[in-house]
Amino acid sequence: MTPGKKLEGLVAATVTPMTPDGQINLSVIRKYVEYLVSEQNVKNVFVNGTTGEGLSLNIQERKQLAEEWVCQGKEKLDHVIIHVGALSLPESQELARHAAAIGASGIAVMAPFFFKPTNKDELTAFLQKVASEAPAVPFYYYHIPSLTGVKIRVEELLGGIKEQIPTFQGVKFSDTDLLDLAQCINKNEREQFAFLYGVDEQLLSALAIGADGAVGSTYNYLGQKTNLMLQAFAKPDLALARKYQFLTGEFLNFVIKLGFGVAQTKAVITFVSGIPMGPPRLPLVAASEEFIVKAKAKLDSIVWPDGD
Amino acid sequence: MTPGKKLEGLVAATVTPMTPDGQINLSVIRKYVEYLVSEQNVKNVFVNGTTGEGLSLNIQERKQLAEEWVCQGKEKLDHVIIHVGALSLPESQELARHAAAIGASGIAVMAPFFFKPTNKDELTAFLQKVASEAPAVPFYYYHIPSLTGVKIRVEELLGGIKEQIPTFQGVKFSDTDLLDLAQCINKNEREQFAFLYGVDEQLLSALAIGADGAVGSTYNYLGQKTNLMLQAFAKPDLALARKYQFLTGEFLNFVIKLGFGVAQTKAVITFVSGIPMGPPRLPLVAASEEFIVKAKAKLDSIVWPDGD
Amino acid sequence: MTPGKKLEGLVAATVTPMTPDGQINLSVIRKYVEYLVSEQNVKNVFVNGTTGEGLSLNIQERKQLAEEWVCQGKEKLDHVIIHVGALSLPESQELARHAAAIGASGIAVMAPFFFKPTNKDELTAFLQKVASEAPAVPFYYYHIPSLTGVKIRVEELLGGIKEQIPTFQGVKFSDTDLLDLAQCINKNEREQFAFLYGVDEQLLSALAIGADGAVGSTYNYLGQKTNLMLQAFAKPDLALARKYQFLTGEFLNFVIKLGFGVAQTKAVITFVSGIPMGPPRLPLVAASEEFIVKAKAKLDSIVWPDGD
Amino acid sequence: MTPGKKLEGLVAATVTPMTPDGQINLSVIRKYVEYLVSEQNVKNVFVNGTTGEGLSLNIQERKQLAEEWVCQGKEKLDHVIIHVGALSLPESQELARHAAAIGASGIAVMAPFFFKPTNKDELTAFLQKVASEAPAVPFYYYHIPSLTGVKIRVEELLGGIKEQIPTFQGVKFSDTDLLDLAQCINKNEREQFAFLYGVDEQLLSALAIGADGAVGSTYNYLGQKTNLMLQAFAKPDLALARKYQFLTGEFLNFVIKLGFGVAQTKAVITFVSGIPMGPPRLPLVAASEEFIVKAKAKLDSIVWPDGD
Repeated sequence: MTPGKKLEGLVAATVTPMTPDGQINLSVIRKYVEYLVSEQNVKNVFVNGTTGEGLSLNIQERKQLAEEWVCQGKEKLDHVIIHVGALSLPESQELARHAAAIGASGIAVMAPFFFKPTNKDELTAFLQKVASEAPAVPFYYYHIPSLTGVKIRVEELLGGIKEQIPTFQGVKFSDTDLLDLAQCINKNEREQFAFLYGVDEQLLSALAIGADGAVGSTYNYLGQKTNLMLQAFAKPDLALARKYQFLTGEFLNFVIKLGFGVAQTKAVITFVSGIPMGPPRLPLVAASEEFIVKAKAKLDSIVWPDGD
Repeated sequence: MTPGKKLEGLVAATVTPMTPDGQINLSVIRKYVEYLVSEQNVKNVFVNGTTGEGLSLNIQERKQLAEEWVCQGKEKLDHVIIHVGALSLPESQELARHAAAIGASGIAVMAPFFFKPTNKDELTAFLQKVASEAPAVPFYYYHIPSLTGVKIRVEELLGGIKEQIPTFQGVKFSDTDLLDLAQCINKNEREQFAFLYGVDEQLLSALAIGADGAVGSTYNYLGQKTNLMLQAFAKPDLALARKYQFLTGEFLNFVIKLGFGVAQTKAVITFVSGIPMGPPRLPLVAASEEFIVKAKAKLDSIVWPDGD
Repeated sequence: MTPGKKLEGLVAATVTPMTPDGQINLSVIRKYVEYLVSEQNVKNVFVNGTTGEGLSLNIQERKQLAEEWVCQGKEKLDHVIIHVGALSLPESQELARHAAAIGASGIAVMAPFFFKPTNKDELTAFLQKVASEAPAVPFYYYHIPSLTGVKIRVEELLGGIKEQIPTFQGVKFSDTDLLDLAQCINKNEREQFAFLYGVDEQLLSALAIGADGAVGSTYNYLGQKTNLMLQAFAKPDLALARKYQFLTGEFLNFVIKLGFGVAQTKAVITFVSGIPMGPPRLPLVAASEEFIVKAKAKLDSIVWPDGD
Repeated sequence: MTPGKKLEGLVAATVTPMTPDGQINLSVIRKYVEYLVSEQNVKNVFVNGTTGEGLSLNIQERKQLAEEWVCQGKEKLDHVIIHVGALSLPESQELARHAAAIGASGIAVMAPFFFKPTNKDELTAFLQKVASEAPAVPFYYYHIPSLTGVKIRVEELLGGIKEQIPTFQGVKFSDTDLLDLAQCINKNEREQFAFLYGVDEQLLSALAIGADGAVGSTYNYLGQKTNLMLQAFAKPDLALARKYQFLTGEFLNFVIKLGFGVAQTKAVITFVSGIPMGPPRLPLVAASEEFIVKAKAKLDSIVWPDGD
């Protein structure tokens, strides 16, 4: 890992490998790291988040996974961000302390969502209590209102955040409200916060308004193609960037119609990487064979601009 | 506690007492039990549920609370139901085993709500995995779609449930869909399930279609009055029952407009019982002084039919 | 019609008969009135509401239907309430004037729902502008937040309503928030407003807290049975009332699972009454043959307490 | 108007001028046209839509407004699109015939939203019945799920649409689902449909994936600035385009916090253009003086990249 380097580019929201009987499977994480780096050119990971079924794991499992990712990523990854959000503040704090102790590059927290903070102050208070348990670790807010139901605008949250949370470093922004994202970017340039977009199917639209990069599950298997999109955008060759976005969108559009979630993502990563990611944990249920066959055929059928 | 006795009448959804600095305060639970029995005539409790901030506690705290309630309730309460629902299946299972070990009268589970079961089978699979860890303990499903977002109809869920979950015993039904509740009651008479209604402000409407009783936070401080409503309904003296419902509704209507949730409930129980329930835990924040003054004045101003 | 008589008991929310090619079919309304009175013992109607596809008709059609109902109901019905709500205030006013001119027993208005009033004052202002165009006609507010998205509590709306709308007479309350309904009833006894419940499948629960009657589509074909439920409730014989509610609920529960709306209601009334109600108008589409067969079989299979 | 020219660039969603007593005010439309062309460089208008309070008007008013816009725009505007959507199919058809008769450049229809079409076929059937009444007039679908609640994906709707609606010409896409928009653009290039984005505050993000232009209320007063953004984007000078988007976003972000809707838009256009647009119609209520003062100060305070 590369301390101090600003987080940008692509971050894979990793799945949690499981054994067929539903236990976490640490043994394949080494291979998973190698695959991300060598096959997808992705050198940052977001662990125990939504895609990682973080909230379906118990504390012990979350710790073991965090440790294994930090350990395996040491020489190979730039950033290992551990999601330590939980409904219970003491649990979230415990995970934050643990992430600090094992040397994670950063921690992230989503808004608690059973009881929901109703304004900026309540949300900040919760985040601050977690962040302060890891006072030397960069802190990221994970904004995902479609899942948490907490719709406090990030632009508002960020006003004065450094005074409350000195370690504040950026946002995983998983929402389609691009006015909010644009105002975040506009107002916080001097702070050098990282704004990482989390709605993979419309990343190009977030880049257009200045997003620094992206955190998402598709970069587990479309990271290399999305990196080409980032390069085209940087030139800028918008027509080419758009082609990549259209094609990743075509795949996602296709699988969304079949029913697409974390369970299905695990299946897709398994057939693309060859690494057995295993089933999801209840209440999620494994992708059907029919889904796998159709998704694979669709992905194989795409003709990319680079001739791949 | 009274093994085998069917759960009916009123069940207090208890708050979790906390010290001023936010730690759980086991020391007042003995008094809390005595107060419920002697002042409110309520002999059943629902522990670590929504009102109890169960999901804001860590596992250790949930276990300690469960133990204290079972211990203090042994000679004095009829039923101590422990809510063991959690987003993480292994955590929920661990809590179920613990509840069995300490001799709880029953366990309850709400639907997981980060990843949400999308149909009856997925929900049943999750519940079954928890219930089977406590194979001798009555199991209750805690239906609260307004908080979980899981809207699977209970009437549908109950079809064949005994084959999947032999310990299934009833439902805490916290929803306003009374067609669903009525069909549950209609179809399951022979099973002798307990249907306990969880929307306190419209309990009389649930009684009208045959609910067995109620689980709710207001029975912590309006239990005695609600027991009089149950008696009036049983006669039946509907006009009298309606008066009680109107008056409890008047109080709730009043505080709802001020902003009413678990934090405010803790404050109300504190001033009614004299037992310090303490602040809530983040992301909840304590009730304001203004709320307390107004709520107390309102409650004191009500003239009950029994002249109280 | 019976001027001055308070609206209570059952009100049929009538469908709008249409010819096979989608024109309104006034010719069967005479028969429809006779059927309601003689077969269902229902002597009040609510015309051009949700069930009547009022908002799918043009102004001319709404007027023709209102006239025909008033004309045919003159000697036979107690109350003919015309729904004159519309998104456009001048249209709603025009319909109110027309209803007054033809001698309707009452007018009703739902909240406008494209632009939505956001508080009591905005809603009252709109309603007042309509009501004042028919200054001698009893006015009813039609509360149906599930369709309008306007969730302003009725209890709040009613505070001081008589000063704004002297003709205010009652509410068609189509919502499951029975705290709101109970507080309406509790606070307005002296005003003698009529509170008519509009969620047919849980009418018994509304009666329990004092509703005066009901407006709904099911009373077109289950009016006679529901009248028996009202009688049982009035005794009170709650066990018997509950049996009727369970059975109507069983039918509704069954058809809801098949997909049940106004189109399907037209089909059910057609097969029960023998009067051809015709297809609905786009965007609604006609009930399938399969639905009709199944719904008919279900309805025929029910054994009512009166041996019918 | 310029027959046959593809609709692109900016389209002003016009407000409906009203007199102080709430009647439509046709007399200022000539000036309104001149203002849009000369001050905002906007030569396309969308009449009687959401911003135009189309659904709050009666049929006669909608016709009069359409006529005045077509008449005044004849020599000066490129496109006058009349929104003819209505809850009532015969009303919508009547408006479509009228728009054809007066020579409108196009008609648009939003999904009916009291009864909602539940799938592509039901929606297409409704749209087709309207479009076929104006068989020589370009037809646009107005997609605005946040207001209609009809979330049928446009990409799906467009499959085979030309066979059903030969006049189909494009979409006003007022939603933040940019995967849907991107797939629309990707799949329909050969059809030469126009995709006009309708969420003004994130237009740049839609341009990035290939939107042809925009329809929105802000182009009434920020049209000239947004045209500069379009030019910057076309170069491409993304950094400059972003500056414009950030600044329009800053204004919108500011007024949204104050409460911003059609009533407030009328006030802003009034103070920017000097043309009295008058109050809105109930259920909308006029913007407060406080809003006007604050909004004006904010708009005046913005320093644009072109030194304005």
